[in-house]
Amino acid sequence: MDVSLLRKRTPGCAESAYFDNAGSALPADRVTQTVIDHLLLEQRVGGYVAADLAAARLDAVYSSVASLINAEPHEIALVENATRAWDMAFYAIPFKPGDRILTSRSEYPSNALAFLQARERFGVKVEPVPDDENGQLCLDALAERLGQGGVRLVAVNHAPTYDGLVNPAAEIGELAARADALYLLDACQSVGQLPIDVKRIGCHLLSATGRKYLRGPRGTGFLYVDEDVVGRLDPPFLDLRAGTWTGPASFEIKADAKRFETWERNVAGLLGLGAAVDDVLDIGIEAIRKRIAQLADDLRAGLSRVSGVTVCDRGVVRSGIVTFSKDGLSAGDIVAGLRAAGVTTAVSLPSRAQFDTRADKPPVVVRASVHYYNTPAEQERLISAVAGL
Amino acid sequence: MDVSLLRKRTPGCAESAYFDNAGSALPADRVTQTVIDHLLLEQRVGGYVAADLAAARLDAVYSSVASLINAEPHEIALVENATRAWDMAFYAIPFKPGDRILTSRSEYPSNALAFLQARERFGVKVEPVPDDENGQLCLDALAERLGQGGVRLVAVNHAPTYDGLVNPAAEIGELAARADALYLLDACQSVGQLPIDVKRIGCHLLSATGRKYLRGPRGTGFLYVDEDVVGRLDPPFLDLRAGTWTGPASFEIKADAKRFETWERNVAGLLGLGAAVDDVLDIGIEAIRKRIAQLADDLRAGLSRVSGVTVCDRGVVRSGIVTFSKDGLSAGDIVAGLRAAGVTTAVSLPSRAQFDTRADKPPVVVRASVHYYNTPAEQERLISAVAGL
Repeated sequence: MDVSLLRKRTPGCAESAYFDNAGSALPADRVTQTVIDHLLLEQRVGGYVAADLAAARLDAVYSSVASLINAEPHEIALVENATRAWDMAFYAIPFKPGDRILTSRSEYPSNALAFLQARERFGVKVEPVPDDENGQLCLDALAERLGQGGVRLVAVNHAPTYDGLVNPAAEIGELAARADALYLLDACQSVGQLPIDVKRIGCHLLSATGRKYLRGPRGTGFLYVDEDVVGRLDPPFLDLRAGTWTGPASFEIKADAKRFETWERNVAGLLGLGAAVDDVLDIGIEAIRKRIAQLADDLRAGLSRVSGVTVCDRGVVRSGIVTFSKDGLSAGDIVAGLRAAGVTTAVSLPSRAQFDTRADKPPVVVRASVHYYNTPAEQERLISAVAGL
Repeated sequence: MDVSLLRKRTPGCAESAYFDNAGSALPADRVTQTVIDHLLLEQRVGGYVAADLAAARLDAVYSSVASLINAEPHEIALVENATRAWDMAFYAIPFKPGDRILTSRSEYPSNALAFLQARERFGVKVEPVPDDENGQLCLDALAERLGQGGVRLVAVNHAPTYDGLVNPAAEIGELAARADALYLLDACQSVGQLPIDVKRIGCHLLSATGRKYLRGPRGTGFLYVDEDVVGRLDPPFLDLRAGTWTGPASFEIKADAKRFETWERNVAGLLGLGAAVDDVLDIGIEAIRKRIAQLADDLRAGLSRVSGVTVCDRGVVRSGIVTFSKDGLSAGDIVAGLRAAGVTTAVSLPSRAQFDTRADKPPVVVRASVHYYNTPAEQERLISAVAGL
């Protein structure tokens, strides 16, 4: 990987030492330019003529996304963001009273809200599976709960937003398959930083965003739907893209993942998403994974050496998300102090994760999420700045 | 209205005589530039820092939209498109078996698909109200049906996509109010070309898009939710923006229209939407209405004089949508022929409107939708080109 070249192609690298990649990563120049070029085309010829001219390129986005996760293009729905992707999948499951949903303690709050709404609406049971001693979802506990029967859905995140770990997605998939449960993987924080093979993982549904590790535009995301389960899912919304109106009282729903799409879409953004995915395919996801893992481990080690700093990450396999606190300083103060020093980080709120009932859970931490374009020098700058606060 | 200046500020006016404004209008330079400026800011400082810097301007978009339709800012949800806006409203209604939904024969197919899905899901009854002799929703028939009781929802479009008419929105609202029915108005084709006052119309819910007569970016839309009914609506999706996770098994839903929003959003596009709405407020919606109505009437008259051409529009009050056919030519051929002559129009498919069971309904027509930036000279060009085909 030619990091120097990739940084040159990323204008934001010149602005700050950027460590909010799990929030919204810096897009490459080509990605932003792809969006802008289409916006300018729309301005000249109108939105629909522009979409016609870009039709083949928009089709190619499906193929690029499918390649990235080892799926078929017709198993991909392009949508507005990861929440929309996850929602379209989750709310399409025909739940019955008493159905059990197993999730992780680190589940993303938006997903948890949907679980609880489904509990109210359909009488499903929502059960956070305990963590193991490393903080990841405990496979033995999952197996035990699956063995009790009645599990309609296993819905977990791949890389939690809070504490730097990576859940054992493939092992979870194996257990879910044995219990004949649907498996929905929230890959919002993992797509673009970790190799993802939906066949190997065994998930039926996978949701992702453009703006995080993929380095795509805001307002883009995608949903993978296994062709073997798509027919059993009832789209929560239905429009002209998702269905066909066949008679005054009849309609048909699209046979593939298009049933989860909407007719109107942000074409410019989706083309930008395609450019971002193509960049990942060009660079190689294994090279990306390796560099991010090394940088994150180095950052954890460096921060740990700073007096008063506690690195809060858990897990055996770790992601590019590094979380920490410093004695006597609030996370907000640290983020502001770093910002003044030209270092971009973010506040993270594990306090929001209500399924995580650990007594020693840190309520608020600093999240420094690294990407492959970060450098050891930037990490030193971050570490020194933290030490100086 | 200084049409010449407004055209200068609309780069697409130099490209073609543009008559697909009901599809996706030409954005003003300022609108596209607003989107691009924010994309470039995101590229420099990252998506979240950029959003923080634009927070006050994003807030102002709510006020602008609220001004446009005489609502309060907290009654506005900013979403990805009109379909999403309409869906969030429609699917939030807690239907019971036997509930009646009254709609128009010209209802937009996406909405009709949702009605039919609700019929399957909840056992509601879907009843298209007959047209009157002018093609608009028949108020007598509506009153009669409302009088029969059990109507949960009146859901109609303000300006159908097909045949150039404007439905009597305020009169419908008065009847719906008397029957204590919810009233959802699809204003996708009317916002930006007609004055809209939700209080005067009496709708509880109103959905709109950015890209049509508002001249905003694709990937933007909004939903108005009357503060008096919002508490009775159960958002079909729930995330961190729409709700708060208050405990392991508890949550709260936002009290206002934010309950229909999503945390992640296309900030650049929404800022562009705000710029587009501000342009409408600056120019004045009554001046816009007047000019569009005059241009559309002139265009209908001019086309009617061409041998073999049939203008298909109905209605007493008409919109900027002009539809026509020409003997011996398919609509597709006409649109292609016009395109070759530098005139942009679109094909429209009344055949899709399955509630419209007229024996003489034209299955496919050409749609030439005018905006205030169109000129008499452009209309002559369109008319001559049609005559020459």
